[in-house]
Amino acid sequence: MRIKLKIEYDGTGYSGWQRQENAPSIQQTIEDALSELLGEKTSITGAARTDAGVHALGQIAHFDSDTKIPPEKIAYALNFALPKDIRIRSSMQVSDAFHARFDAKAKWYRYSIYNNRHASALYRNYFCHVAYALDTVVMSEALGCIRGRHDFSAFAASGSVAKETTKEIYVAKLKSVGDRISIDIIGNGFLYNMVRIIAGTLIDIGRGKISSSSLRKMLETKQREDGGITAPPEGLMLMEVFYDSVPTYDKYIYLSSLHDGFITA
Amino acid sequence: MRIKLKIEYDGTGYSGWQRQENAPSIQQTIEDALSELLGEKTSITGAARTDAGVHALGQIAHFDSDTKIPPEKIAYALNFALPKDIRIRSSMQVSDAFHARFDAKAKWYRYSIYNNRHASALYRNYFCHVAYALDTVVMSEALGCIRGRHDFSAFAASGSVAKETTKEIYVAKLKSVGDRISIDIIGNGFLYNMVRIIAGTLIDIGRGKISSSSLRKMLETKQREDGGITAPPEGLMLMEVFYDSVPTYDKYIYLSSLHDGFITA
Repeated sequence: MRIKLKIEYDGTGYSGWQRQENAPSIQQTIEDALSELLGEKTSITGAARTDAGVHALGQIAHFDSDTKIPPEKIAYALNFALPKDIRIRSSMQVSDAFHARFDAKAKWYRYSIYNNRHASALYRNYFCHVAYALDTVVMSEALGCIRGRHDFSAFAASGSVAKETTKEIYVAKLKSVGDRISIDIIGNGFLYNMVRIIAGTLIDIGRGKISSSSLRKMLETKQREDGGITAPPEGLMLMEVFYDSVPTYDKYIYLSSLHDGFITA
Repeated sequence: MRIKLKIEYDGTGYSGWQRQENAPSIQQTIEDALSELLGEKTSITGAARTDAGVHALGQIAHFDSDTKIPPEKIAYALNFALPKDIRIRSSMQVSDAFHARFDAKAKWYRYSIYNNRHASALYRNYFCHVAYALDTVVMSEALGCIRGRHDFSAFAASGSVAKETTKEIYVAKLKSVGDRISIDIIGNGFLYNMVRIIAGTLIDIGRGKISSSSLRKMLETKQREDGGITAPPEGLMLMEVFYDSVPTYDKYIYLSSLHDGFITA
């Protein structure tokens, strides 16, 4: 049978999601615990490959097993074996045809910025610190242009080879509370570093280093050089992966309210 | 001249605020950095002695120095030398008569609970995990009785010797969003472990283990045994210390809104 896991992790201490040589990854840590639990070598497939330092509230993965453990109990059993910075939120049996990556209709990422002269002790691993004063009104207006269907060629790390660079963005929203800013983006797919390039370009727009039309220009020219920095990984969080349908804006607002408090602006 | 520091810290990796033998403390770490910066042995006096694992958004401390460094610049200079889990938010000259502990008119503590079957990876160091279902309506009602002036003898760690056990509580408020609960308490003083005993008793009330009138009973009988557990340190945060005046309820609501998001419910 096929089992679906919902996974939360603090990416600070890991080399990222994907199994790598010579560095602990989230995937490897879960696979090791799972193989130990099930008594057989088990591989998991994740919905998204998050980079080193990137976090997840709702990563999704699947694996196959003939275990006699009831599917819902696997979360509890795994959590006993896993380090405290990785937690399985739920485990359930799904159709054998389910695929965590290919079946995802949309993914929700949040990029969080701490905008203050001094860095934060408590937010240091979960927010990107920006000491320059940022104009959040200009940033919020600039962000709007990425909504809809666009060729995001300019928003990929150089050297990355993606076949399909046209993506649809359903939600792109900036919120600001006190000295914290969050940028929520829900789309049907993301190129490598895409959210961090959007966030970095917004940061450079917000401090007045580049034109407020830079995001729009990138969509037109398809040139990475027209954008700003690639924002650092610690500000990025995979919030949720949607399989049934693309969330409506009202659904997003509702889900967002549940996460208000912590890791949010 | 006397300098006042506002300090934020993640208490996870420390033995607490106070200088101790054989374990790194927040106070010692700051004193070491300060002594190095000023070129002379310097001691600091904090407003509150937080325990191991307890955090602070707004701890206050003072020290004396004849340094030529402009007072406002000391925060920047110290932050270069300090580890990233301790940040000086501000530094300023104050009257030579100012005392961080004795002059405090009120302190605001927040106790944060993560109420979910599974623990959280991202909140693990900042929230107390409670797997039992908690009735937040009952908890919120029970909390009300501590407002005002009371003898809090029953709310002190056993063996602690405090001369004055009568304290005044100005704000006692429970908020609940999704699976997170925060308990805010502002008072003119706190006995050792007092907030953690209030929080632990509320947790035991919320899961139905003890009577919903337990807090009230503790105030009457002055018996620690009438209460619940002492909640663990990681959920506790020193939010702010007030020197000018006790905050009005409206001021508290305003300050609380600035912290909404992160470490809050």
